[in-house]
Amino acid sequence: MRVLVTGAAGFLGKHVARRFLAEGWEVRGFDLDDLSGSEFETVKGDLTDQASVEAAIRGTDTVAHIGAIGDVYLAGERPSLAAQVNVVGTSNVVQAANAAGVRVVYASTWEVYGEPEYEPIDEAHPTQPDHPYNITKLAGESMLLSACRLHGLSGIALRLGTAYGSGLRPNSVFRIFLDRARAGDKITVQGDGSQGRQFTHASDIARAFVLAASSDLSGRAINIVAPETVSIKELADLIVSRHPTEVEFGEPRAGDVPPATVTAALAGELLGWTADVPFDRGIEEFISSVPSRG
Amino acid sequence: MRVLVTGAAGFLGKHVARRFLAEGWEVRGFDLDDLSGSEFETVKGDLTDQASVEAAIRGTDTVAHIGAIGDVYLAGERPSLAAQVNVVGTSNVVQAANAAGVRVVYASTWEVYGEPEYEPIDEAHPTQPDHPYNITKLAGESMLLSACRLHGLSGIALRLGTAYGSGLRPNSVFRIFLDRARAGDKITVQGDGSQGRQFTHASDIARAFVLAASSDLSGRAINIVAPETVSIKELADLIVSRHPTEVEFGEPRAGDVPPATVTAALAGELLGWTADVPFDRGIEEFISSVPSRG
Repeated sequence: MRVLVTGAAGFLGKHVARRFLAEGWEVRGFDLDDLSGSEFETVKGDLTDQASVEAAIRGTDTVAHIGAIGDVYLAGERPSLAAQVNVVGTSNVVQAANAAGVRVVYASTWEVYGEPEYEPIDEAHPTQPDHPYNITKLAGESMLLSACRLHGLSGIALRLGTAYGSGLRPNSVFRIFLDRARAGDKITVQGDGSQGRQFTHASDIARAFVLAASSDLSGRAINIVAPETVSIKELADLIVSRHPTEVEFGEPRAGDVPPATVTAALAGELLGWTADVPFDRGIEEFISSVPSRG
Repeated sequence: MRVLVTGAAGFLGKHVARRFLAEGWEVRGFDLDDLSGSEFETVKGDLTDQASVEAAIRGTDTVAHIGAIGDVYLAGERPSLAAQVNVVGTSNVVQAANAAGVRVVYASTWEVYGEPEYEPIDEAHPTQPDHPYNITKLAGESMLLSACRLHGLSGIALRLGTAYGSGLRPNSVFRIFLDRARAGDKITVQGDGSQGRQFTHASDIARAFVLAASSDLSGRAINIVAPETVSIKELADLIVSRHPTEVEFGEPRAGDVPPATVTAALAGELLGWTADVPFDRGIEEFISSVPSRG
């Protein structure tokens, strides 16, 4: 079986591509960024260019569509770019996959739900995204599910928990806390730090992609979220316990997604997926994956 | 007061531009299509080009953002184009308006709701669009409301009923029925024709735009939908009563939005808007507005 992994040069794309390789799939990686040194076939291309997407999909069985403006801050600063890559780009992938009869597994996000109306949030919960990042990710998801319904495309959307693991981008809260703590600089927690997140390890997410690619379930969105809730304060404390430094509390950041508990029970039922990596192990592994500076 | 009307060469844009003119606003029309012969200042430009949107917005107080791939069939055939114009284009308008301190009144659609969970549908009803047209219109709306919340932009989204009136595009069901009936050709109703629509006259919609532009209500989406429900069968019968021809029933069309009753009570409360044009008067006016062929 052959899979095209879009965004294969990114944090999550790399984890997913490697997992497919490990499971015996042939992997083709697609990215605008440099893919040299990859252990798999690579194609440099732009999601917003229909022809290059079509060419890259040719000859594959499945697309793991992860390529996106995944940096929430960048999406907030450049909403039109987020719309371009996350909606037009996804629409290009969906159209090309539909034309080629290729299955799509799409990286959506738990952030599509917005303010919780009940908890834990399951897949039947209304969606009310409120930031260019999650708005455009939901629009991409809807485009996929619409093509499944209208054109019989085989596809599934994974609403991922906040991902962490080796290779996280430098402006992620994990990296900022760790880099500052190691340098002996103060860590700033936005708000009171009580806001919780179900941080989900990239290796668990990668496994979900392979399970979803191998399933014939279609036309659904499924939560892929680890069960543990860790507050930002706890994350800061964990890092400070290893690299002692001061923790201060700042203004809550506008546009931060409110905390909510999300259940992945459906993923257990339909895909046989549950998270394997407990947070204490995952954070340990993350810390050791980031080389100390200097 | 000066308003930029995007999509001013289109069916709804023309009605809205004329209404603003009639209410004493200075009007600048923006469209990719030909605007020659307009009674107002015009700018030829592309919504997907940030610079041309910025230039067009300069010096105005309000944007009535109507420009879109508004043809549902075209959006279904070319989802990436719909994403480009309706999401990236709207995002460009929102960014430019935000930078210039200009208010935005956005043409959204009742179709964002999807399958009704209760009726009549009010603005608190969940949104679950299922077609590239309404998916991209909702994403545009969400981008606007997000900018209101995050950046203090002044803006409002009008979730419009199915619009009709003079100048409707030739592939609308109104024009297809009328043109075929006049030619003595059979009219085909998709499904059993019982599916109802709250057809809303373009002049009522145009009035809602002026009311919304003049209000300082912000960060909300409001239904602008006429109260009467008319079935497709009734529409066909009305036209056939004037131009007798045969009516047949075909397969329901995949992707048609399911019927649902929508309430515009909030528009009455917050904008003082209710629909003025009863359907029998509106359809009469529509029929007389379309010149007979040959």
